[in-house]
Amino acid sequence: MNYFSSGFKLGILGGGQLGKMLLAETRKFDIQTYVLDPSAEAPGRLACNVFQQGNLMDFETVYNFGKQVDILTFEIELVNIAALEKLESEGIKIYPSPKTLKRIQNKGIQKDFYKTHNIASAPYQRFENANALKTAISENKVLLPFVWKCTEFGYDGNGVKVIRKTEDCDLLPNVECISEEMIPFKNELAVIVTRNVSGEIKTYPVVEMEFHPEANQVEYVICPARIDDAVAEKARKLALEVSKAFEHVGLLAVEMFQTTSDEILVNEVAPRPHNSGHYSIEASYTSQFENHLRAILDLPLGDTGSKVAGIMVNLVGEEGHSGDVLYENMEAILGWHGVTPHIYGKRQTRPFRKMGHVTIVNEDISEARKIAEKVKKTIKVISK
Amino acid sequence: MNYFSSGFKLGILGGGQLGKMLLAETRKFDIQTYVLDPSAEAPGRLACNVFQQGNLMDFETVYNFGKQVDILTFEIELVNIAALEKLESEGIKIYPSPKTLKRIQNKGIQKDFYKTHNIASAPYQRFENANALKTAISENKVLLPFVWKCTEFGYDGNGVKVIRKTEDCDLLPNVECISEEMIPFKNELAVIVTRNVSGEIKTYPVVEMEFHPEANQVEYVICPARIDDAVAEKARKLALEVSKAFEHVGLLAVEMFQTTSDEILVNEVAPRPHNSGHYSIEASYTSQFENHLRAILDLPLGDTGSKVAGIMVNLVGEEGHSGDVLYENMEAILGWHGVTPHIYGKRQTRPFRKMGHVTIVNEDISEARKIAEKVKKTIKVISK
Repeated sequence: MNYFSSGFKLGILGGGQLGKMLLAETRKFDIQTYVLDPSAEAPGRLACNVFQQGNLMDFETVYNFGKQVDILTFEIELVNIAALEKLESEGIKIYPSPKTLKRIQNKGIQKDFYKTHNIASAPYQRFENANALKTAISENKVLLPFVWKCTEFGYDGNGVKVIRKTEDCDLLPNVECISEEMIPFKNELAVIVTRNVSGEIKTYPVVEMEFHPEANQVEYVICPARIDDAVAEKARKLALEVSKAFEHVGLLAVEMFQTTSDEILVNEVAPRPHNSGHYSIEASYTSQFENHLRAILDLPLGDTGSKVAGIMVNLVGEEGHSGDVLYENMEAILGWHGVTPHIYGKRQTRPFRKMGHVTIVNEDISEARKIAEKVKKTIKVISK
Repeated sequence: MNYFSSGFKLGILGGGQLGKMLLAETRKFDIQTYVLDPSAEAPGRLACNVFQQGNLMDFETVYNFGKQVDILTFEIELVNIAALEKLESEGIKIYPSPKTLKRIQNKGIQKDFYKTHNIASAPYQRFENANALKTAISENKVLLPFVWKCTEFGYDGNGVKVIRKTEDCDLLPNVECISEEMIPFKNELAVIVTRNVSGEIKTYPVVEMEFHPEANQVEYVICPARIDDAVAEKARKLALEVSKAFEHVGLLAVEMFQTTSDEILVNEVAPRPHNSGHYSIEASYTSQFENHLRAILDLPLGDTGSKVAGIMVNLVGEEGHSGDVLYENMEAILGWHGVTPHIYGKRQTRPFRKMGHVTIVNEDISEARKIAEKVKKTIKVISK
């Protein structure tokens, strides 16, 4: 297949920041792209060949969009799967496949999948709704405290809650959910796996999510993770196992816990470019976005190794600020070694909205960590 | 000034590959861009906010385009300078300035500039046309052999000829020209200098152009140049001198000769991103394109140092092939370590047309050189 400066067409469902960063790679290779997103202001409206505005959950919209392209991918899991299945049955190639997406979209099904495949993950129970969960608690079938997760439509920590007493359940929406045992962990780790259509597989190095000591928010994604080689090797092996079980095509970001006893448990996966891999644009020989593209086009995978250490800081809207965005102190951080801001292109900021990220690369990871902390303290996403 | 996700508008004259690669940076920072190019198929027609088709040498077209933006830059020297001067007089910021462009656009004026500023460069004489040159040869005022250069509209080696005997002159167009003494040189070197509006200056490392032993064509641009540190330091200092003399804003690519006696002479300069700096996208902490943007927006300059060694190979159309382009053996080269192709997006190939480039990065420069040679021998730009 000839993809480069040819009549070949790639479709991308979703034109958010992940779609936008993927488009940087399709431009580099001059691959024709079609993007579908509900917002006329989507970051991915530029740099594609054709942008279409439409609802990603609507059967007709997704089906008609997909009929125009040769290969279809997505940057968001919340898309109409029935339309994908029909497109696939009609010969459109879809990577990752609707089958992979179905296994992941519902967290209950995802947990069952790990169980079936003997993949280490926290013990859990599935419930049709919050009422069923409450009954189980009252019957001591679920022990407090535990982690509640809604099975669908959660993102960025939405749809996850620690339940410490029965009354905490009163605030839960009455939707399908799971309860998960609370596992005491030292570190949250992630490994991005890339797998092409022919089955070639490569893993990126293990990254570490460093949390704010009080706010319990991820502050830094650090590559490589500052953990023992043996633990890193265990995490990488587990991620490979997960990848092989799913037989996905494209990227699979595997989020994991390192327990206090150095066990590694799978938390959850995402079959697409992932926040934990953004550092790769500046730090890796091949970025996660380029490797996603290579994988779904069945090209040889690029080297997932790093040129230098990389740390990523998310740029989220400050509390108390809504409206036209202003990136305060950008000039200051641009003056520091190895600092690259990525501005996603959302005109309006809101508290905690993901507006961009900053990568800090350095030959010396502890130096990168110091600069990352300065970046974090300096730049502010506010409104005008 | 607030550039990021704001109402600020940057204009770019020219939408060729340099414009296209600059747009990758404006997307990263979400800076609004307007692009003007004569071709509806220009590589830079995508990833800008507004694309306009028009003649870059036409006064009205350039003037009307410039009136819409806050800052104007260019990726090609062949633009209407009178329009730029009028725009500048009306308050539009233009970087590099029309003054810099005027000093460079005509090679006779450029050579005079070096003389006035005591910048080492090959001895030369200026002529109004080929007839005046022939008279000077007949009067022994110009000695054979020498290098003939037309003063305007040359590019990529066009407009440069070695004259060995008087009759060689008969093939020259009767245009303004210079004669330059032939200097025996060991190496062709280049240094890219970036200078922002406030006058902050940084230089990229010295790169080396490696020529094909027979065809006398640049085959590889190698960073860092494999030369003595003392020679590299001399080249870097000379490039800085040139930059300070021009007081340019944005990039200045300074091409130089290393003579057989290790003197460094300026050959010529280009006030824009340059082929000799393409390696920086993968190898440098900050690419030449990002630093051009930072410079013209008066932001702090990024680090010009390298993460790893980089070698660039141009992808030019094979002889005997014209028509819809096909990149033969792309899959092979994508499988090798540190290889990144850039496909500019020209649908039609022609013999020697610049269609793209490939960067090879590696921790070990001699390893990179070996892979670069394999790449050069493997990939072919042919027609379907």
